[in-house]
Amino acid sequence: MSNKYKNIGIVGLSNNPKIPQLIESIVAILTSEKREVLIDRKFESLVDLINITYVTKKEIQNKCDLVISLGGDGTMLESAKNYGIEGIPLLGVNLGSLGFLTDIAPEDIEKELKAILNSELQIDERFFIKAKIDNKELDYKALNEIVIHSGAIAQMIEFTLFVDDQFVCKQRADGLIISTPTGSTAYSLSGGGPIIHPELDIILILPIFPQSLNSSPIIVDANKEIKIVLSEKQKIDSAEISFDSQENISLSPNSIIDISKHSSRLLLLHPKNHDFFSGCRDKLGWGKSII
Amino acid sequence: MSNKYKNIGIVGLSNNPKIPQLIESIVAILTSEKREVLIDRKFESLVDLINITYVTKKEIQNKCDLVISLGGDGTMLESAKNYGIEGIPLLGVNLGSLGFLTDIAPEDIEKELKAILNSELQIDERFFIKAKIDNKELDYKALNEIVIHSGAIAQMIEFTLFVDDQFVCKQRADGLIISTPTGSTAYSLSGGGPIIHPELDIILILPIFPQSLNSSPIIVDANKEIKIVLSEKQKIDSAEISFDSQENISLSPNSIIDISKHSSRLLLLHPKNHDFFSGCRDKLGWGKSII
Amino acid sequence: MSNKYKNIGIVGLSNNPKIPQLIESIVAILTSEKREVLIDRKFESLVDLINITYVTKKEIQNKCDLVISLGGDGTMLESAKNYGIEGIPLLGVNLGSLGFLTDIAPEDIEKELKAILNSELQIDERFFIKAKIDNKELDYKALNEIVIHSGAIAQMIEFTLFVDDQFVCKQRADGLIISTPTGSTAYSLSGGGPIIHPELDIILILPIFPQSLNSSPIIVDANKEIKIVLSEKQKIDSAEISFDSQENISLSPNSIIDISKHSSRLLLLHPKNHDFFSGCRDKLGWGKSII
Amino acid sequence: MSNKYKNIGIVGLSNNPKIPQLIESIVAILTSEKREVLIDRKFESLVDLINITYVTKKEIQNKCDLVISLGGDGTMLESAKNYGIEGIPLLGVNLGSLGFLTDIAPEDIEKELKAILNSELQIDERFFIKAKIDNKELDYKALNEIVIHSGAIAQMIEFTLFVDDQFVCKQRADGLIISTPTGSTAYSLSGGGPIIHPELDIILILPIFPQSLNSSPIIVDANKEIKIVLSEKQKIDSAEISFDSQENISLSPNSIIDISKHSSRLLLLHPKNHDFFSGCRDKLGWGKSII
Repeated sequence: MSNKYKNIGIVGLSNNPKIPQLIESIVAILTSEKREVLIDRKFESLVDLINITYVTKKEIQNKCDLVISLGGDGTMLESAKNYGIEGIPLLGVNLGSLGFLTDIAPEDIEKELKAILNSELQIDERFFIKAKIDNKELDYKALNEIVIHSGAIAQMIEFTLFVDDQFVCKQRADGLIISTPTGSTAYSLSGGGPIIHPELDIILILPIFPQSLNSSPIIVDANKEIKIVLSEKQKIDSAEISFDSQENISLSPNSIIDISKHSSRLLLLHPKNHDFFSGCRDKLGWGKSII
Repeated sequence: MSNKYKNIGIVGLSNNPKIPQLIESIVAILTSEKREVLIDRKFESLVDLINITYVTKKEIQNKCDLVISLGGDGTMLESAKNYGIEGIPLLGVNLGSLGFLTDIAPEDIEKELKAILNSELQIDERFFIKAKIDNKELDYKALNEIVIHSGAIAQMIEFTLFVDDQFVCKQRADGLIISTPTGSTAYSLSGGGPIIHPELDIILILPIFPQSLNSSPIIVDANKEIKIVLSEKQKIDSAEISFDSQENISLSPNSIIDISKHSSRLLLLHPKNHDFFSGCRDKLGWGKSII
Repeated sequence: MSNKYKNIGIVGLSNNPKIPQLIESIVAILTSEKREVLIDRKFESLVDLINITYVTKKEIQNKCDLVISLGGDGTMLESAKNYGIEGIPLLGVNLGSLGFLTDIAPEDIEKELKAILNSELQIDERFFIKAKIDNKELDYKALNEIVIHSGAIAQMIEFTLFVDDQFVCKQRADGLIISTPTGSTAYSLSGGGPIIHPELDIILILPIFPQSLNSSPIIVDANKEIKIVLSEKQKIDSAEISFDSQENISLSPNSIIDISKHSSRLLLLHPKNHDFFSGCRDKLGWGKSII
Repeated sequence: MSNKYKNIGIVGLSNNPKIPQLIESIVAILTSEKREVLIDRKFESLVDLINITYVTKKEIQNKCDLVISLGGDGTMLESAKNYGIEGIPLLGVNLGSLGFLTDIAPEDIEKELKAILNSELQIDERFFIKAKIDNKELDYKALNEIVIHSGAIAQMIEFTLFVDDQFVCKQRADGLIISTPTGSTAYSLSGGGPIIHPELDIILILPIFPQSLNSSPIIVDANKEIKIVLSEKQKIDSAEISFDSQENISLSPNSIIDISKHSSRLLLLHPKNHDFFSGCRDKLGWGKSII
């Protein structure tokens, strides 16, 4: 037995009818592999298992050296911020359709989980980005993207963009997306951004509905600091900053936002044969012809 | 003297320092051409002219058979809704940079205005679009575009689109733009929409950041009715409908929005040599090469 | 019996193994409906039917008042130019996957064909475009698009574009697509063009990899004349004009190309419930979500 | 005196009337700074200077430790392949308009050149890409991009794409662009690709007019090997591979093309205040608003 991954947490969606059966299967596998299992106590009423400890989020953070996230990419995003950002490796089991982050199907769980516990795995390292507003760091982090926007569609913000204090441009747009490679298959994709292999250490800057002649996205080194200075313009009542489309904070005119890489890394565990492009083919219809 | 355009209103921006001088020049030309001049009373404190009537918006609507709009395209949009929609032809004098709607430069005003008063002109007819929500018609009209959106960037709405009751698609997107040809050089252009010659009787439907594999804009006959049915989805607190980015109204889940051509036409007067593509070349940098 | 569609031609792909069986079914239906059937003589060796006349393309052109095209959109394109352009209505039976032009599946042929013969049908009218080079009209027509290009990828042409003799722009690009609404779901779609409802009388002008800051497609009235004047530039050895990606003709520097609507209309017959958007949903994955 | 850059070559465009005067100024500066000057002998008839050696390309390659390239980005591309690829640093003096690679204006030459000779400079390192066809390496290299294409617009090729032997997708398209960061402001920009900061070690893969539902560009590590396997398809008479739009080689069906980073680096010297984004602002109209 590998001495890695002894205490394994189970977290995720609770409103899916497949969950109880899935948790039971996972617990059976983990027990047979002699691991300690800690289950998010929100599952307590759903799953009736003997010798199982239902615990708080805090206990999972403190005790687990692996967390299994049940659900889709949205659930994984949440698990990433609850556990992954603390340095705990994550494994995603999807319910229903394949995700970019969650790549183990329920029917493969026995085979894949055993293999991973026996160190037949790939470790996929992702980074988070963080933001300072007027030099004060926010608690929120983003795994996919930070968006600065007007708080309303069809309302522009005006801002000046700097990369490592080098002036890039002054622009009016509905907003600006600052995306990690992980986020390149999320919101920025809807805006026409490129797909970035997740192993790359780069950041994508993509304007939303810009009022400029050229509106190409820009790709820079992820270790640079991206600064956005909002103009003092009468038209904007309020701008906002959003993290992974989950948390929103209001910005006042003249706000200075500094976006940079966070020091934590997310460790996603995948089966040995995991393949980023396979997810793209499935999700993006790369095999399907238009004409 | 042409018996058209006897009573001419002057409206527009009041916070531009060039305005008083410009109004004086226009009044001198109109007086020499024996026209009655009615000036928006908001200019009363700015312009000190003898024998000039300062009037309310209502009086301009009732008495004028031509309105001169001083300002840019934004001002013209307002004039279009105050006067143009009532059937009064409009003439746009731009201050500063050329617009798509306002094409007479202050320095050409004497020559161009005299020519137009002598029927050397082009009449450019534009249409407005209107909306019904749950079968109740709204007062607002749009000359450029109606946007249905989530009320926030990076928050999706889910909706079903019909054209003349024919199912088109069910989609999740940040929003949907329904644009007239006039609007094709406004907001929809930032979203990658095509440029549509303003004489065409067609409507452009353009999704904003859609979550679908193909996101092509769709062009349909302007005499069709476009119906958008919002899904009842828990994620949307509020959706909104916006007219020319000026008026916003909240929408509840399950709202049914019907968008169609309004019966009024906007008549824009232009000099004889006016040319839609010339505005595109100037504003869109068509003459400038990237590489 | 409707007195329309008495003499019906059968044409199309001959290298598909489903063809003999399909022709036999169609002949049986047509015979039971008391129609004369004329079969393209290229099928003579494949189909062994008594009392059937195998004829030349010329005879089909001369005698038929309906032609059934067996195959996909490519075959229909050919049928359109052989028979449709002569005024003969066409009906498309697809083999394999659905097309935008051919919408009757083999399994529905009995029901749909009988309905159509009994005047339960929709008539969908499409237009062709034609070209003159240096004032000399070419024989080729296009149902989808005419492309002017450098004859090589990553080699630019420089040209000036006029619409009804009005200067639009001077541009350098790999090429220029002039597309009908029918062509909006063909080549121009790969280049990001909008989807245009086929009933509209408009033309799309789409630059291919242009070297200009704004590269929006332009939509104009289909009754306008589009003129492209090639510059005399040393870099271009040869430019070309292509019709529906099928016929190519060399162009010399300084060539003047005039593109306009051809007088013939293509009449496509469809089942009564035919729906343009249904084809879009199927072919363009409108129902599929990315994320 | 810095002991760097003792023997300096002058190369570039010879058909520009500003050249003789410019060369004379440069020679005067270099002589005053006690450097040896070697001038491309194609300038011999244009410039009449005493004590100057006119030499062959080979001699410049062998003797110079700095080459000054006079002209635009196209000339610099040529200098990069003649001298830069051999390890000789390059300095670009533009004639006329600013380029992305050539950033010293003639009027600044004295100040900038002296500063650079005194080691007040930035060194900007770029990489080339190379190709093997069926395992045989080609002599040509690309600084901007390698394009695999059908040899004709509106004619597709079908190919399978692999990155480090991992299957990415099978696609039909007019072609495929494999671009360096340097190339991101060249051909790929016309195709909608992102702008990539030149310091990044990544490669952009951009399909040209693909027939697939999603056509996002893909960004991968520049140290990966990109393999394109052409399908054996009857429709393609000929495919081609092109290097920086300058050299073209025919490809047969079933060709296997391997594209990877070349071992040489290009060293571009810039003034200390050089700024990649400044070039973008100037060339791409980032400061100009549409609406």
